[in-house]
Amino acid sequence: MTVMDHVNPWVLAIDLGGTWTRFAAIDAGGRLVVRRRRATGSDLEPERIRAGWRAELEAVAVDAGRAGLAAAPRAVGVGATGPVERGSGRLLDPPNTGPGLAGLALVAEFGALVDAPVAVERDTNAALIAEHTRGAARGADHVVYLTLSTGVGGAVLEGGRLLHGRHGGAGELGHLVSDPAGPRCGCGRRGCLEAIASGPALAAEASRRIAAGATSALASAPEPLTGAAVGVAAQRGDALARAVLDAARDAVARAVVDIANAFDPELVVVGGSVGLGQPGWIDTAERAVRARALPPTRDGCRVVPADLGDDAVLYGAAALAWDLRA
Amino acid sequence: MTVMDHVNPWVLAIDLGGTWTRFAAIDAGGRLVVRRRRATGSDLEPERIRAGWRAELEAVAVDAGRAGLAAAPRAVGVGATGPVERGSGRLLDPPNTGPGLAGLALVAEFGALVDAPVAVERDTNAALIAEHTRGAARGADHVVYLTLSTGVGGAVLEGGRLLHGRHGGAGELGHLVSDPAGPRCGCGRRGCLEAIASGPALAAEASRRIAAGATSALASAPEPLTGAAVGVAAQRGDALARAVLDAARDAVARAVVDIANAFDPELVVVGGSVGLGQPGWIDTAERAVRARALPPTRDGCRVVPADLGDDAVLYGAAALAWDLRA
Repeated sequence: MTVMDHVNPWVLAIDLGGTWTRFAAIDAGGRLVVRRRRATGSDLEPERIRAGWRAELEAVAVDAGRAGLAAAPRAVGVGATGPVERGSGRLLDPPNTGPGLAGLALVAEFGALVDAPVAVERDTNAALIAEHTRGAARGADHVVYLTLSTGVGGAVLEGGRLLHGRHGGAGELGHLVSDPAGPRCGCGRRGCLEAIASGPALAAEASRRIAAGATSALASAPEPLTGAAVGVAAQRGDALARAVLDAARDAVARAVVDIANAFDPELVVVGGSVGLGQPGWIDTAERAVRARALPPTRDGCRVVPADLGDDAVLYGAAALAWDLRA
Repeated sequence: MTVMDHVNPWVLAIDLGGTWTRFAAIDAGGRLVVRRRRATGSDLEPERIRAGWRAELEAVAVDAGRAGLAAAPRAVGVGATGPVERGSGRLLDPPNTGPGLAGLALVAEFGALVDAPVAVERDTNAALIAEHTRGAARGADHVVYLTLSTGVGGAVLEGGRLLHGRHGGAGELGHLVSDPAGPRCGCGRRGCLEAIASGPALAAEASRRIAAGATSALASAPEPLTGAAVGVAAQRGDALARAVLDAARDAVARAVVDIANAFDPELVVVGGSVGLGQPGWIDTAERAVRARALPPTRDGCRVVPADLGDDAVLYGAAALAWDLRA
């Protein structure tokens, strides 16, 4: 260990997503000094995935050294697409990734690659920690984070601590049923929030309405239809697209009131490309809380957009890693 | 203070319900030695309500002394019909009681009547503490309690601690929306679990179906129709009553899966006269969790009936009171 190990310490932050795995060196001041990414490759054999991680970790360490940081990270923080087993960081039957990752215990996996302690959380938990540490939830200790994107997920902070539940699964808010007569969800139920208000759900609902004979500019849109295309069409005044988004907005507002009643947060932070792409959704949800949640929550719970962008999981993973050394 | 004050200590437990307020002296071994009750009288002026409390407290102390307990309680624990403000124990706009109780801060109120520390929780929180201490949830630290009765309420234990949220409102699980096209709830929303699976909701749904022309033995039942009458008719084979109960059972199962996903408990304890009066509901809910909740929760969450009867709130209030002296 050299003098530099003490003067410029850093942690390794990893955002393990369904498509991309991102790696960063983040220093004690919270600055993201080095970043790399690699395709997650979850259809590969575990040995190939490990080899890719090893290569990235070595490359980050080299880049970190060149940038004046210590030679090795003090700790490793991982935010992984869920579900994630508490303690071991084991990836449990991950619906958003291929079979290569299933069952990998990430604390042991990264511990074997880096001589430093490892913390693993579900990616939504890491994002909430980031919003709490440096984003929209600074100063608030009772917070629910809801992300609407390709999937819908959540995380809960109670008294400044992450809610984990018995096995690490607490906060899976994308699978609250919003409408029992709604579309089939990937989890097997009907009408989960994820089956109504995720990007793919918006596209699927528009496709269903078009197939049922509704008129829309989206009927001639390039295949496959996306949630983003639905958003663009709505902005251009397409009535079908607007109806799809309005229904999803109302489902989100209902879910946020449910969340307010269940967790009594002072703040609901809404993130994700879909959640942030529809700013009216956040206002509608806050009005619904004011009008419909139970006291005392209804008067003391705000609904706000997430502050941090795509790096939220990396920043949260870094905060978790620093906590290991605190 | 006499020797008896040390040798036979007790706490005063109070269950403040919408109709009845119950008072008990509970000793250090958890034995309920004295019990009294009085109509809550929430339509009375606060001064009258206070006078009633004072009379009951004095009577409990006299009876406790006669039973060989100390002259005065060591602490007071109150489980009150919600919502209850955290810290002060203030009753916030209580939907299940009259105006006389609204705004009363119970920590100060009972502190003025008894020279002892006072703990106040929502009644469902107290019932969960009791189930955790001596009932169905012994040994489990991640527990959700769901009570189905005149109302539907809940409480959550995370890592052995009650989930309070920012203002004390966490765990209001009766107002998760189960069906957005469902009947209007007292809270102003549609299709809350309370509007589908409470006793009055079962009766109201049967009445609606009869008014719409359905045939049922309940059409000639004494007015007003009750949830209990629906249960009896179903046992006798009445098809309408059975259909009403089946729909409510399915709503409860959906809500329990939502709860499992949101809180990841190891145990969901179902109580209340409606919840316990329909044992098939608990089995159906557990099967739904196994089939539909996300991993890791689905394999590690049981659904069980509450163990303690009508005294659960008193026992929980006593446990909270003893904790003040621990």
